[in-house]
Amino acid sequence: MNIIQVGSSGHYEYALAAAKRAGFRFTGICMGDRREKNTTRERFRKFGFEVPLYEDYSEMLEKAPSDIVIINSFMGYNAEFAAEALRRGKHVFIEKPIATTLEGLRLVMREYHNANTKEMLEKCGRKRVCLCGMFGILDEPQFMTARKTAASGVLGEIRLVNAQKSYKLGEREEFYSERELYGGTIPWVAIHAIDWAWRLFGLHFTEVTARQSRAANGGNGTMESDAICLFRGSRDEIVSVSADYFRPAGAPTHGDDRIRAVGERGIMEVRAGKVYITDENGEREVSEYEKSGSIFDEFINETETGNPGRVSAMGSFYSTYLALCARESADKGKTVALDFDAFCREI
Amino acid sequence: MNIIQVGSSGHYEYALAAAKRAGFRFTGICMGDRREKNTTRERFRKFGFEVPLYEDYSEMLEKAPSDIVIINSFMGYNAEFAAEALRRGKHVFIEKPIATTLEGLRLVMREYHNANTKEMLEKCGRKRVCLCGMFGILDEPQFMTARKTAASGVLGEIRLVNAQKSYKLGEREEFYSERELYGGTIPWVAIHAIDWAWRLFGLHFTEVTARQSRAANGGNGTMESDAICLFRGSRDEIVSVSADYFRPAGAPTHGDDRIRAVGERGIMEVRAGKVYITDENGEREVSEYEKSGSIFDEFINETETGNPGRVSAMGSFYSTYLALCARESADKGKTVALDFDAFCREI
Repeated sequence: MNIIQVGSSGHYEYALAAAKRAGFRFTGICMGDRREKNTTRERFRKFGFEVPLYEDYSEMLEKAPSDIVIINSFMGYNAEFAAEALRRGKHVFIEKPIATTLEGLRLVMREYHNANTKEMLEKCGRKRVCLCGMFGILDEPQFMTARKTAASGVLGEIRLVNAQKSYKLGEREEFYSERELYGGTIPWVAIHAIDWAWRLFGLHFTEVTARQSRAANGGNGTMESDAICLFRGSRDEIVSVSADYFRPAGAPTHGDDRIRAVGERGIMEVRAGKVYITDENGEREVSEYEKSGSIFDEFINETETGNPGRVSAMGSFYSTYLALCARESADKGKTVALDFDAFCREI
Repeated sequence: MNIIQVGSSGHYEYALAAAKRAGFRFTGICMGDRREKNTTRERFRKFGFEVPLYEDYSEMLEKAPSDIVIINSFMGYNAEFAAEALRRGKHVFIEKPIATTLEGLRLVMREYHNANTKEMLEKCGRKRVCLCGMFGILDEPQFMTARKTAASGVLGEIRLVNAQKSYKLGEREEFYSERELYGGTIPWVAIHAIDWAWRLFGLHFTEVTARQSRAANGGNGTMESDAICLFRGSRDEIVSVSADYFRPAGAPTHGDDRIRAVGERGIMEVRAGKVYITDENGEREVSEYEKSGSIFDEFINETETGNPGRVSAMGSFYSTYLALCARESADKGKTVALDFDAFCREI
């Protein structure tokens, strides 16, 4: 299989080792924007990939042989780049959010739908055209373990979730300062915790109220420094998602990812890479951890077998929809009703 | 000084040791409702207080000599009982919330105001008539330490707070099943975390959105099993308050109180009775803890000197106002604007 990549700004590293193991070739890379720094080719070389550089994304799509397109530029371009790849019947491995506007998300979903019509599949010679968002944090052992723990029933029905993302600000590239290119802190950072909340516990959300702030954002233009989202589930579950860039530089890790899931029978916490359970038997750490998975291995499997991995296209679309609606709530200061089914019907 | 007490359902234990030390007398107790169990007299005996039992609150107020009235019955009666005591120029030590409706809060605030007019003070012979809500958790060493830490400036300006109350459900007395008597889980449980959020960090709130649920509440009628409140501060701070009754019976403590305060320069966490700081120097536990305070000692001091303790009347009113507005938001499913200054002007 042949891979091409646009951009060097996201988490494309997920793909490198897996692509190497699978014997895939990188046949082209281009930048998505002239302001993007191309740090990618050097990383590619470390894995033994010598990759031709193209000037233009459309030209690369046209000329470089490709089965998979990795979309990895400024997030504001995600939807347009994904739509162009899907129109040509390419598999898409794409940085989250899938789009930075609901219109963009609609466009990608429409092209994904069109690419998977019988006619288009015959034309491009695939069983299925696949898309996967880079929700790779799910593959960390603590989150895989949390999912398994919740599924085991030890917590009973989940009633309330508090999820947290906290990042170091560090030096942010210039595009973070522009909402148009960056998309916002809810779709970029909080989206992971939003993704955990429905994915690990099988929740379905019906409304969201969110607030965000740009105060003390270290001079990063329109970038929000923090946000909290309050989701309501269809069975009256309540979920808070807190996201911030205030993790101090002196902290031992870049991110401080947490979940507290409150069930009828037990409470589970994910904190500092560990999973803890409190139930009628007291408090304890889980005794067995799942092993780290590989999101790109799963994606390769999906392209070969047609069986969706954990991060399916629809799951990637759903998390993006939730994050964009939460951002809308924060932008407008009002509660937003969520109806993903209706959104899907409209595409 | 003489103390009388109505009810045996709240946290009057705050007063016992302090009253004993101060050489005060308990001159009467009565129940606030015939459904209330009088477990109080036995506890009083353990401290050497032999207390006459009255049938009726008004009769007790009339006949038993008293300077301080402890209001400690079903929360739905708080406002009425407080108003009656204040009208007679008594100091009031009262379970939170101060009232279970905004109208009730207005009534208490009006009577508190009237009791402190020059004419009324001369009539009852006091320098000041004092009122204190039972926000005694503030006196625990970790919260006193958290307050001192935040005030020291090590965190910089606070931008975001996540606060948590989680209780064991246990066996709840029958009155918890009735909203009219109980008031709700936001004004009863979440109110502590709401109180910390403004009190420890000097925040002033401008709006609140809250959600609550009665699902899986163990058959306790209209009692909410959980809630999350999302507050907005006047300087764009964002605060989430999570409250639930799902702490498992097997957990080592009744409550799981937490705060995570995110500042521009550092993050502080209160968890399991400890205080942790993360800043440019890394993560650490605070090196010195404050000693436990005594809310009733402070209240005695206030009645004697006229100098408000940390839990002033206005602070008790403010936390009650915030909790009742949050409950209104959850009841009605809408965001509620907060304007305590305007509320005070209207009393």
